[in-house]
Amino acid sequence: MTNLSPLQIERLKYEPKLPSSLANGINHLVSQEGTATQSVANQDEISALFKNTYGKPTVTFKTASESTESSLRNVGVILSGGQAPGGHNVIAGLYDALKQANSSNKLYGFLGGPSGIIEGKYVEFDDKFIDAYRNTGGFDIIGSGRTKLETEEQFQSSLEVCKKLNISAVVIIGGDDSNTNAALLAEWFVAHNAGIQVIGCPKTIDGDLKNEQIEISFGFDTATKTYAELIGNIERDANSAKKYWHFIKIMGRSASHVALEAALQTQPNITLISEEVEQKKMSLSSIIDYITDIVVRRSDNGKNFGIAVVPEGLIEFIPELKSMIANLNDIMSTLESNSAYSNGTDAEKISIIENTLSSENSSVFKSLPSLIKSQLLMDRDPHGNVQVSKIETEKLLISMVEEKLANLKKEGKYSGKFSTQSHFFGYEGRCAFPSNFDADYCYSLGFNAFALINFGLTGYLSSVRNLTAPATEWIAGGVPLTMMMNMERRHGEMKPVIKKALVELDGPVFKKLELNREDWAMNDRYLFPGAIQYFGPSSVCDITTVTLALEKSLANV
Amino acid sequence: MTNLSPLQIERLKYEPKLPSSLANGINHLVSQEGTATQSVANQDEISALFKNTYGKPTVTFKTASESTESSLRNVGVILSGGQAPGGHNVIAGLYDALKQANSSNKLYGFLGGPSGIIEGKYVEFDDKFIDAYRNTGGFDIIGSGRTKLETEEQFQSSLEVCKKLNISAVVIIGGDDSNTNAALLAEWFVAHNAGIQVIGCPKTIDGDLKNEQIEISFGFDTATKTYAELIGNIERDANSAKKYWHFIKIMGRSASHVALEAALQTQPNITLISEEVEQKKMSLSSIIDYITDIVVRRSDNGKNFGIAVVPEGLIEFIPELKSMIANLNDIMSTLESNSAYSNGTDAEKISIIENTLSSENSSVFKSLPSLIKSQLLMDRDPHGNVQVSKIETEKLLISMVEEKLANLKKEGKYSGKFSTQSHFFGYEGRCAFPSNFDADYCYSLGFNAFALINFGLTGYLSSVRNLTAPATEWIAGGVPLTMMMNMERRHGEMKPVIKKALVELDGPVFKKLELNREDWAMNDRYLFPGAIQYFGPSSVCDITTVTLALEKSLANV
Repeated sequence: MTNLSPLQIERLKYEPKLPSSLANGINHLVSQEGTATQSVANQDEISALFKNTYGKPTVTFKTASESTESSLRNVGVILSGGQAPGGHNVIAGLYDALKQANSSNKLYGFLGGPSGIIEGKYVEFDDKFIDAYRNTGGFDIIGSGRTKLETEEQFQSSLEVCKKLNISAVVIIGGDDSNTNAALLAEWFVAHNAGIQVIGCPKTIDGDLKNEQIEISFGFDTATKTYAELIGNIERDANSAKKYWHFIKIMGRSASHVALEAALQTQPNITLISEEVEQKKMSLSSIIDYITDIVVRRSDNGKNFGIAVVPEGLIEFIPELKSMIANLNDIMSTLESNSAYSNGTDAEKISIIENTLSSENSSVFKSLPSLIKSQLLMDRDPHGNVQVSKIETEKLLISMVEEKLANLKKEGKYSGKFSTQSHFFGYEGRCAFPSNFDADYCYSLGFNAFALINFGLTGYLSSVRNLTAPATEWIAGGVPLTMMMNMERRHGEMKPVIKKALVELDGPVFKKLELNREDWAMNDRYLFPGAIQYFGPSSVCDITTVTLALEKSLANV
Repeated sequence: MTNLSPLQIERLKYEPKLPSSLANGINHLVSQEGTATQSVANQDEISALFKNTYGKPTVTFKTASESTESSLRNVGVILSGGQAPGGHNVIAGLYDALKQANSSNKLYGFLGGPSGIIEGKYVEFDDKFIDAYRNTGGFDIIGSGRTKLETEEQFQSSLEVCKKLNISAVVIIGGDDSNTNAALLAEWFVAHNAGIQVIGCPKTIDGDLKNEQIEISFGFDTATKTYAELIGNIERDANSAKKYWHFIKIMGRSASHVALEAALQTQPNITLISEEVEQKKMSLSSIIDYITDIVVRRSDNGKNFGIAVVPEGLIEFIPELKSMIANLNDIMSTLESNSAYSNGTDAEKISIIENTLSSENSSVFKSLPSLIKSQLLMDRDPHGNVQVSKIETEKLLISMVEEKLANLKKEGKYSGKFSTQSHFFGYEGRCAFPSNFDADYCYSLGFNAFALINFGLTGYLSSVRNLTAPATEWIAGGVPLTMMMNMERRHGEMKPVIKKALVELDGPVFKKLELNREDWAMNDRYLFPGAIQYFGPSSVCDITTVTLALEKSLANV
């Protein structure tokens, strides 16, 4: 790196805060064990699959009265899956703890995600290397990847690579799937007397890796702050120009935590939550009715503008669209081997699809705007499925609301103007400079991961809790990965997996939206969070998410 | 406003910096006159059109040794045109100066842009009102509008409204057109012995209202920082995932200053500049060749990812597209009265267009991807023209590069993968919280506008210069609006207008890009500016644009 931005120069100097238990030094720790643990469900199956690592106690670290000596350890670290702000700090915290324990310890970074450990592609970190990435965004320090570490052959290759480097512990930084794989690898290493520990770290901007043991995964704080900055700016623009309805799609396929958090930070007129759509079995037309009703009532009040926030994964949660897409995925391989289809124009393809889908699914398909029909024809994903992330849900909604408004206009029930702008925010937030919260939390997670290694633990998740308190009061420790698991069907087989957290409709976070949304719809309660601040008053630069605050305040009641 | 974000609470407390000449108080100023001025061109025509306000000297304010008394003045203020960060601070600075001069002075805000002064819609400001908007983004304090203040009737209505409120001065905050209209209104008021002064303030995020007298217009700093934040975040994501080419379109129709500044702050692999395309008469296919060449060469180096920044107005600068769009605008009203066209499907419309355009323009139209053809069919603007802002230029480029790459692949000249994401950033930046620079600059412009009023001047632009120095060293004064004018053809008639500043290909700003772009194309020199900081080290929170720094450093050589 030959040139750095002014902010980067200053952020390199930032010293992340640690829980006071860890701040006294890696060689000044005692571990306190809790009682034996159980998986959240399917205890029999999980314990049978994880014979060696199941049922271990949680641990909490406290400052020891005397210092201990650490034996020599080489550790390898992997970044897995999508980028999340703070990944570099997990590695920096891990590195600092490892070197503090024993300056002869070595930290290796596996390149390009889990494939790095399988293929033996790695770097060795030193001070200069680490220092260039402190408190920066991105996963570019060693890259990431989506290879799933789950087969016997992969485990065998990983073992050989670790042996060659004399690595006795691996830290896997990833989401629910990657931590599931960390648990599998930990179990396999024990079962094969490999003498290699595995520790996981909870990462995902999606917010769906959280549970009784994990208050928040890293990256969610920074990503949602970035999206909230942009939504707030657009709200202020809409409220100044009074000219456009902005439909803003926000990253988050399988859960709507990101859209919900961003909405709570900005208070837009409309917020759709996929989990609500699914649980209440809301049809596409009922969603269009809901939006249209607000557009019309605001227009009656002289407001032909507004903000609607839509989660990326929405259409997969709308029952009839889910069914239609499943049907489309089923027929697609047959269609593509049909030359009339594969050589057809878009219009011909659409007509063939309409004749091949079941009659119910066909009428759903027919009801879609032509832009969306074309997007459904586009390239498949590697499994041959429709790429839902390529569907411009925000434009689908706009187009169908337009149609509905045109009908209302004919009936004399609407006389407003519906000019729109659409946006999609996702990549903008995954690699932002981590907020102070994420910088501190990630550094602590990494530092703490080494503490777990030093105490000889394996199959644990690095856990830092009590996160709404100041960092010094955070509680560091470890949670057995198996404790968060249940059995779920994946590709037709029952598999042990860490349970994803969805938005809970009876939880305090959704309730906050539900209680306020009619007020926010009609009155302009826009909040303008502005850009993430790394300096300045603590009320601005050290706060974390509304989601966590609401969850904790309820927990404290 | 019942609830505020943490940043908003803190920003309300921020005290904008003033040039030291103004900081000593509005009643402690002397004005120093320069020599008589000339318009930049067409002196005879401009002086004939502005008989009363032409040729006045520039003025500079200095601190007076003794204080003077101010007579009672009521002032009206107008926000005109698109939002730009800092507009609220212009009004706050104006208000503070006006109240400091005489606490019985009144400031009125005309609502919804220039139509407010014509229709007599206004509010009167008081401390509480102003205080709620200090250092905030947006134009929501009084709204804005695009009504052009230029006819005799409008001037007459404005005069009546001002008389009713006993207003003796009007401040118009706007871009080049709005300031042109400010000059016309100033002249008209003098010619009609109205006793009403008019002062302009230079606003535009586009960066095209600058010249020998105006170093920068307000809003450009904050908006470009916001876009650069997002581009930098996406660069870090691209460099981490190494998976996508991101094509990022940036607001800026008639000039590419915004794209250029954002590019200098982030150093993407590809930056297109409309002015270069026009001056070098680059065809669409030569642009596609340029992009494709970089995609292929990066791919040869193992890099199937990258960042391309594209100015919003690009297609209007590509000669053959400009000609085709002009032809399309010409034939459209005839086509729309043709029932075969207006009742036709999209495919039928496209075929009719292809048969109606001149043969050259028709082949340009035919060469476009179908998505873009459809977008060219969409709703016209109020003048019946194609809405160029609705054309997804970023997708046009992606689609044509894809086609070209497919051909190269067939020829065995390319074997990479070209996965893409497209983005458009515009509304995200227009209403951000103003940077410290824009907060200070705007407050100074507003405060200074009242100084110009207090010295009895009219037809002047509020001028604050020496902006790369600390704020205390800024030079406050006024410039006759006529000084920046020339004659240009508008709707078939020659009109006096303030000359727009385009990117100069032989200027230091474009040269910086030109000198570095081959290096940036192949090597990853990404810079990550991060979010705008309002607190912290001055190197981070008080810097202004690269554009201004380059222009000033050359000026100082």
